[in-house]
Amino acid sequence: MNQRKLEVCLTPALIPLYKVEDYIVVIIDIFRATSSICYGIENGAEAIIPVAEVAECAAYREKGSEFLLAAERNGEVVEGFDFGNSPFSYTPEKVGGKTVVLTTTNGTHALHLSRAAKKVVIGSFLNLNALSAWLGDQQEDILLVCAGWKNNFNLEDTLFAGAVVEKLKDAGYKLDDSAIGANDLYQAGQNDINAYLKKSSHSERLKKLGIEADVAFCLQVDQITAIPVLEGDKLVKLK
Amino acid sequence: MNQRKLEVCLTPALIPLYKVEDYIVVIIDIFRATSSICYGIENGAEAIIPVAEVAECAAYREKGSEFLLAAERNGEVVEGFDFGNSPFSYTPEKVGGKTVVLTTTNGTHALHLSRAAKKVVIGSFLNLNALSAWLGDQQEDILLVCAGWKNNFNLEDTLFAGAVVEKLKDAGYKLDDSAIGANDLYQAGQNDINAYLKKSSHSERLKKLGIEADVAFCLQVDQITAIPVLEGDKLVKLK
Repeated sequence: MNQRKLEVCLTPALIPLYKVEDYIVVIIDIFRATSSICYGIENGAEAIIPVAEVAECAAYREKGSEFLLAAERNGEVVEGFDFGNSPFSYTPEKVGGKTVVLTTTNGTHALHLSRAAKKVVIGSFLNLNALSAWLGDQQEDILLVCAGWKNNFNLEDTLFAGAVVEKLKDAGYKLDDSAIGANDLYQAGQNDINAYLKKSSHSERLKKLGIEADVAFCLQVDQITAIPVLEGDKLVKLK
Repeated sequence: MNQRKLEVCLTPALIPLYKVEDYIVVIIDIFRATSSICYGIENGAEAIIPVAEVAECAAYREKGSEFLLAAERNGEVVEGFDFGNSPFSYTPEKVGGKTVVLTTTNGTHALHLSRAAKKVVIGSFLNLNALSAWLGDQQEDILLVCAGWKNNFNLEDTLFAGAVVEKLKDAGYKLDDSAIGANDLYQAGQNDINAYLKKSSHSERLKKLGIEADVAFCLQVDQITAIPVLEGDKLVKLK
C-alpha cells in the first residue's frame, strides 16, 4: 500500500485544491461550532443539522417540535430560537433525543465544500483522542479542514489540526507543508493553549462577546468519545 | 492615526480576501523567483519582467537583444533561452544593464493578483533587513503575500514572512492570525532555516532538481540592499 497522506487544508477557500473524494475529511471549527456539535452528539442528540443562515434555521420551526433551533448573532440568542451556539446548551437534558438545527457560517461552508469526501467527521479538542485513534485505524488519506474565519486562516483551528498531526505523525503518514506547520504551531502552544490563543486576533472579539467560559470549555481535551459523522445533511454519531 | 496593520496572505488563492488597494504588498517566492529578482536588481539589471509561461518569455526574443530570457523546466534551461532560474545566473557580468524576462508560475500569479496595491515590492532573505527597514518607514498597512506552491501553503515563503514580522512587530503593528502563526514558525526554524526546511514537502523535489546550492544561496540573510518595486509590468530598483 502507498504511504497514507495526512494533510491540512488551512481554510475552506483552499478546499478546491484537494480532490476531497480521496480523503476522509475532518471539519474543525473550534470556537464553537464543532465543539458544540461533538458535545451535543455525545450527550444524546439524535442528529445535528448545520445550516448557514438564521432564516434557514427558522424554517425548521414548521417541521415539528422535535427540532431545536440554535442561532445567535453577536453573542445573543436570536429571538424565538431555543438557544445559541454555546456548548453549555448541548447538555443531555436539553438535546437528548432531539435534532438540533445549528446556525454556523464558517463550519457549514467547510462542510458543504467537503461533502464529496469518503467520510466527513467532526473534530474538537473534546474528542481529540477518540477521533485520532479512529482516524489512525482507517487505511485512508486524511484531510484536516480548518473552517477558519470568513475563508481566512485562524490560529485555533490550525492548532487543533496540529494536535491531530501530533497524535498520528509517528504512524508514518506523509505530511504536507501545512500539516508540518500546524504541528509546529501546536508544539509552540500546547503547554497552555488558552494563553497561546490570547494573542490571536480572535481573542478580543471573543472577549467582547462575553464567551470566555465557552472558550475555556472548548479547549478541554478528551472529555468525550463521540465522533459525529455526516450522513446526508445530518451529523449523527459514528457507530 | 490608526494602528498600522501587518498581515500575511498565506497563498495567492487568499488574495481576494484582502482589499489590496489599501496595502503595500510584498511578494515572496523564496525558491527561487524573488531571491533571483532581488539579486539581479542589486547587480544592475535594468529591469526584470516576470511572466507565467515559457511561450510568453520566448516572445521577447523578437523585441531585441537587450532582453535576456530566463526559463527552465524540471531544473534544466529551456533550449534557446539564455539561462534558468538559478540566482547564480543573476551576476553583474550577466545582467548588468539588461532587462531579464523571467518565467515563474507562482510568483507571477501572486504579482498579477496584487497589482492594484499602493506599491508592490519584492522580498527575499537576501534583502530582509533593507526591506524591513523600508517597510517600517512607510506609514502604511503591509500585506506579505506568499507565492506558495500551486496556490497552496508552503513553509519557506511563510517562514520568510515570519522573519519580516519579527523585524517589525515591536513597532506596534496590528498582526492578524497568519502573521502571528508565520512569526511563530520563523521562531521555531530561525536557528537553522536550511535544516528546518529539510522536513518540508518541497525539500525532496528541490533535491531531485539538483538545486541544493541555489537553496542554500536563497537562505542567506542580508547580502544586498536593493528592493525591487513593480512599475507597470516591470520590476525595477526602488529609489
